[in-house]
Amino acid sequence: MTEFQRPLSLESYPVPGELAPGEVLVRIQMAGICGTDIHLWLGQLPVPLPLIMGHETVGAIEAIGGANAIYDWRGNQLRTGDRIGWASGISCGQCYYCRPKRQPTRCLSRKAYGISYRATEAPHLRGGYSDWILLRPETAMFRLPETVPTESLIGGGCALTTALHGLERCPVQLGDTVVVQGAGPVGLAAVAMANASGAAQIIVVGGPAHRLQMAGTFGATDLVSLDDYPTAGARRQRVLDLTGGFGADIVIECVGMPEAVNESLHFCRDGARLLVLGQYANAGNIEFNPHTITRKQLEIHGSWGFEPRHVDQAIRLLENPVWRDRFARQITHRYRLEEANQALETVRTWQSGKAVLLP
Amino acid sequence: MTEFQRPLSLESYPVPGELAPGEVLVRIQMAGICGTDIHLWLGQLPVPLPLIMGHETVGAIEAIGGANAIYDWRGNQLRTGDRIGWASGISCGQCYYCRPKRQPTRCLSRKAYGISYRATEAPHLRGGYSDWILLRPETAMFRLPETVPTESLIGGGCALTTALHGLERCPVQLGDTVVVQGAGPVGLAAVAMANASGAAQIIVVGGPAHRLQMAGTFGATDLVSLDDYPTAGARRQRVLDLTGGFGADIVIECVGMPEAVNESLHFCRDGARLLVLGQYANAGNIEFNPHTITRKQLEIHGSWGFEPRHVDQAIRLLENPVWRDRFARQITHRYRLEEANQALETVRTWQSGKAVLLP
Amino acid sequence: MTEFQRPLSLESYPVPGELAPGEVLVRIQMAGICGTDIHLWLGQLPVPLPLIMGHETVGAIEAIGGANAIYDWRGNQLRTGDRIGWASGISCGQCYYCRPKRQPTRCLSRKAYGISYRATEAPHLRGGYSDWILLRPETAMFRLPETVPTESLIGGGCALTTALHGLERCPVQLGDTVVVQGAGPVGLAAVAMANASGAAQIIVVGGPAHRLQMAGTFGATDLVSLDDYPTAGARRQRVLDLTGGFGADIVIECVGMPEAVNESLHFCRDGARLLVLGQYANAGNIEFNPHTITRKQLEIHGSWGFEPRHVDQAIRLLENPVWRDRFARQITHRYRLEEANQALETVRTWQSGKAVLLP
Amino acid sequence: MTEFQRPLSLESYPVPGELAPGEVLVRIQMAGICGTDIHLWLGQLPVPLPLIMGHETVGAIEAIGGANAIYDWRGNQLRTGDRIGWASGISCGQCYYCRPKRQPTRCLSRKAYGISYRATEAPHLRGGYSDWILLRPETAMFRLPETVPTESLIGGGCALTTALHGLERCPVQLGDTVVVQGAGPVGLAAVAMANASGAAQIIVVGGPAHRLQMAGTFGATDLVSLDDYPTAGARRQRVLDLTGGFGADIVIECVGMPEAVNESLHFCRDGARLLVLGQYANAGNIEFNPHTITRKQLEIHGSWGFEPRHVDQAIRLLENPVWRDRFARQITHRYRLEEANQALETVRTWQSGKAVLLP
Repeated sequence: MTEFQRPLSLESYPVPGELAPGEVLVRIQMAGICGTDIHLWLGQLPVPLPLIMGHETVGAIEAIGGANAIYDWRGNQLRTGDRIGWASGISCGQCYYCRPKRQPTRCLSRKAYGISYRATEAPHLRGGYSDWILLRPETAMFRLPETVPTESLIGGGCALTTALHGLERCPVQLGDTVVVQGAGPVGLAAVAMANASGAAQIIVVGGPAHRLQMAGTFGATDLVSLDDYPTAGARRQRVLDLTGGFGADIVIECVGMPEAVNESLHFCRDGARLLVLGQYANAGNIEFNPHTITRKQLEIHGSWGFEPRHVDQAIRLLENPVWRDRFARQITHRYRLEEANQALETVRTWQSGKAVLLP
Repeated sequence: MTEFQRPLSLESYPVPGELAPGEVLVRIQMAGICGTDIHLWLGQLPVPLPLIMGHETVGAIEAIGGANAIYDWRGNQLRTGDRIGWASGISCGQCYYCRPKRQPTRCLSRKAYGISYRATEAPHLRGGYSDWILLRPETAMFRLPETVPTESLIGGGCALTTALHGLERCPVQLGDTVVVQGAGPVGLAAVAMANASGAAQIIVVGGPAHRLQMAGTFGATDLVSLDDYPTAGARRQRVLDLTGGFGADIVIECVGMPEAVNESLHFCRDGARLLVLGQYANAGNIEFNPHTITRKQLEIHGSWGFEPRHVDQAIRLLENPVWRDRFARQITHRYRLEEANQALETVRTWQSGKAVLLP
Repeated sequence: MTEFQRPLSLESYPVPGELAPGEVLVRIQMAGICGTDIHLWLGQLPVPLPLIMGHETVGAIEAIGGANAIYDWRGNQLRTGDRIGWASGISCGQCYYCRPKRQPTRCLSRKAYGISYRATEAPHLRGGYSDWILLRPETAMFRLPETVPTESLIGGGCALTTALHGLERCPVQLGDTVVVQGAGPVGLAAVAMANASGAAQIIVVGGPAHRLQMAGTFGATDLVSLDDYPTAGARRQRVLDLTGGFGADIVIECVGMPEAVNESLHFCRDGARLLVLGQYANAGNIEFNPHTITRKQLEIHGSWGFEPRHVDQAIRLLENPVWRDRFARQITHRYRLEEANQALETVRTWQSGKAVLLP
Repeated sequence: MTEFQRPLSLESYPVPGELAPGEVLVRIQMAGICGTDIHLWLGQLPVPLPLIMGHETVGAIEAIGGANAIYDWRGNQLRTGDRIGWASGISCGQCYYCRPKRQPTRCLSRKAYGISYRATEAPHLRGGYSDWILLRPETAMFRLPETVPTESLIGGGCALTTALHGLERCPVQLGDTVVVQGAGPVGLAAVAMANASGAAQIIVVGGPAHRLQMAGTFGATDLVSLDDYPTAGARRQRVLDLTGGFGADIVIECVGMPEAVNESLHFCRDGARLLVLGQYANAGNIEFNPHTITRKQLEIHGSWGFEPRHVDQAIRLLENPVWRDRFARQITHRYRLEEANQALETVRTWQSGKAVLLP
């Protein structure tokens, strides 16, 4: 990406010969296209240009720098040929947010592959829309077990780890009534994890039809289609009707359009919890009445990105055949690297479950 | 109060002769004027008219209905002449919010003295701006210990119980850096309880000067005056300067003007908790950016009213001589019942610490 | 039960003619035999004699006292003929534990059907091993939906509500490794609820074989049979082998023999949580090393009985066809009232899944 | 220490000339004698011999290894001459407990100065009872602010950080009734932090008289002396009398003798929380009835050691003049290094507030 809102171009950068100790050169096998990539492409987050996008990636180790053995986050020694995934973000472990406040996702010098590195600066290869990626020694890598196919991990993508982080902060409890707003990858991951956590009822509000249907296979019990309920008022009424007139115990916003947050509040029963997962980009202001927070006695949680342990958790979840297959089936569109613009367009226009690049 | 935003008038209603079993007739000794009364008077909450306002009240039992012994919330038998306070709100104990969801302050048929009863309907005497009040059998009454003067309980008022409820939902923890927005009664109660809970730093943002000074005596460590820092930007910068550039661990909004909530977000460090205590009335919308919730990874809590156990807790706190005296000294203005309009005006124009009516 | 450890006898008491307002006379349809009944029969809990045992009961309303409509805990009006269940315990709502400390299961004047009422005192009919039971007006009754068969609710019994209460205090979280000690009704309910809450691995340690097998149908992933691993050391080693050498994230003790608690500690990883559900009766002391609590940095939770909201929650869970059928299938033995001694013996010798009396 | 339960001897080891990068050589100014040192000396914890004891230490930086700037845990650059303290334990940051389970105090390869290093192995100088100590690069060091005297930090010692960790896991809440068992350094730190956290009543059960008196200056409201109440039964009755017959909301065991834990349970009201802080060494078994955990519906927490952030928190607390002075006054006995045996004896026989070594 050389300019926001312009087609991506294919560039060549040198593959490094000699690696520094602990560096890992990976031949990329699959890179997911995340909704955040669309936000980046629209210029809604501050990123350096030009940028090699791609922060959901799996590949095989081609080379390891230095003479010493290196280990993945779980303590497994890594060797050439190993198929690995990794946490896209790296926190410093030393700053105000990493240490006393224990909010490493808000690390003051956090950097993420596919987001924070300028492609024209050496060593260039810091994004997933590429044949190769060069991982820093501090990267939290995970050797993938054979029981977890690449399709499952990319199918889950950072949507799954984002949902796991959010639900750690604001857990769904056994028997809860849940509303999930949005049926994109984050919404589906939220449905899946709400289902796994024992929700009694999971109402999904969103579209389009093919995604809503997929939400049903992930555990949604009630589908509220934007086609059938095109106004906020109609959707509110429908959710109230489905919840005995009161609203849900927990609402998970996975839409990303600011106005969705106003709708979230209407879906909450008094004393409910609201998890705002979708507002990852700054997409502008809404008219908002803060009296609602007090009067409905709400609890609202924001959650940013994820930590390596959520990748660890995701991989363990995907060893369960049920989730392994459902997330793998999210991938509906596959493109070659040179078709990246077409792939972005497919995602932007909500045509896909999940689109991936295969170098 | 016969009309919103018009002077109150003095009306006469009959004192009931025969009481129903469990009813308690109380001769009022002191009634506090709460900021909420101003909101009621401005018409910002839906209440019936005409209304005998007054929901912070202490008095002496004149008569008890029925032949059976009655008991206060703590199990003490009540007798004629006992000096008592009571929780202004009564929850049904049986509805969706009282039972499965355990949110009794959001009880579907909650009624509060001084707020929910039409004065023209028998038995009329359901508010504190009066010589007499007739308490329903379900009222959570508290016989006041001699060590707790009436001035202390009314000085704390429903501001103290509201703060206790809020801080139960969103506790200040040992060593926390706290910002309290607002230096009215709720703000001062929040300062006091943050201080009692072990806050290391308590920054109060507000005015006017006489109240800020009082905040200092309640435990504030830093005062940010609206006079010295008249713009939101200046206040934000001041709070950042006082918190190492990051913002506070916990922010407690006790202002009541909607725009204050936008300022709250700026005072929060990433990962902070925000307690919205001041938006008791519906005073309109703000321009709000929901991206902030996600990006700053915030936790936002609303809290409505209080339960009888918070009155219990308040009375125990006020047995501590330090809090007993500080809250008693909040009362700066005393009026007779016929001076109620003058009293309201004093409160509305922020001239008082706390104003009370003495029938 | 007229004497501990002696056969029960069949006695006749008058069915009341005129009911007091709010009292409900129920014709019993099914009464479960609970493990606690065995403890009662052994004399391990202080109960009055003679006693009509039976605290897990479903029946049909025969008569309602008074002229007013009465309602179940959920607000449904109750009528003659309605099939109902109820919470066996009644808390006063007014004491130190009910009010300020909010521990109603430890209510100072708590009474439970089938446990706390002397059969020779009027109105006699306060237990479930009977044709009739007379419910006090304060009872939390539940009109049963048609989708919840009597077999399911009695199959779950107070084991299910006890597990729900325990897991509310000490929740299983998504991805947890869980050890459940014991494969009786409480153990199976704990397995079921751990499964529903998203446990990744559920190891059941217990016996006999027919119950362990049932644990597998409830969601256990690993079975550690007392036959195959007859010593505490062997069981410990087996659990460590199944958990990467570390022990479980959460251990749920559902055995009831005191020594099981020492075994629990060995099954815990450092920093684990231990829920002690099985020590309902006082069955004596163990040799215990308190250093373990500190060194392993444990969190240990006790939980006593349950509240009406756990019955509400259980009924909602049993509307899910999966749980409805599994719990119904727990009932393996059915007896007539006059076969109660035979039924008790079946339960005492661990021969049954669940045994019930059918008047 | 060359043998358990034998006098310590004074040995000479070489001060290293050249330091490795990041190593810090510190000239010791003061070393506290901790109760754990007595347990070590008694052989109640597995430690290597010979051992230079001493894990509460303050000193001045003599030399820094390598050419690069080094920083303390808070990000301050460290320079020769800086007065520093440090966390005695170092966790690896990579193991099962450090990473997925987030229990770094249970790190599988945790090492602590003054506890885990054999003195005969280079570089020898890894304990505080010494003129010099050599700190590993991974050590969490803290440059001490001028407002925090060495006496305050050593006066608090690891008792204060241990209490902070424990109370983080099991917090004292505003208005709680607290029992602290033990009036040694951990007990006094627990009293101080309970007081700072808003406890309404703090009952200290312990002795001897001079320490109980000191507990009063730290915030205890009621003192139960072992002299006046020599039996467990008398102490139990006294605590019940002081708590309205029910027991405390939270009990903090800081004694270290196993039998104290049985006494803890008696001091708990039903539904109370119990924090076991004192069982740091394995001092044997007790006769224990696990039924109590269930019947009293208790919550029991163990806590092991502390993390760097608790040292950070302690230093910030000690900047408060009240705590600065109180903890400094704990130091009642000062010895030269060659008087270490006399110092240990003073601590072992409970004669001191806190004893320190001044090299």
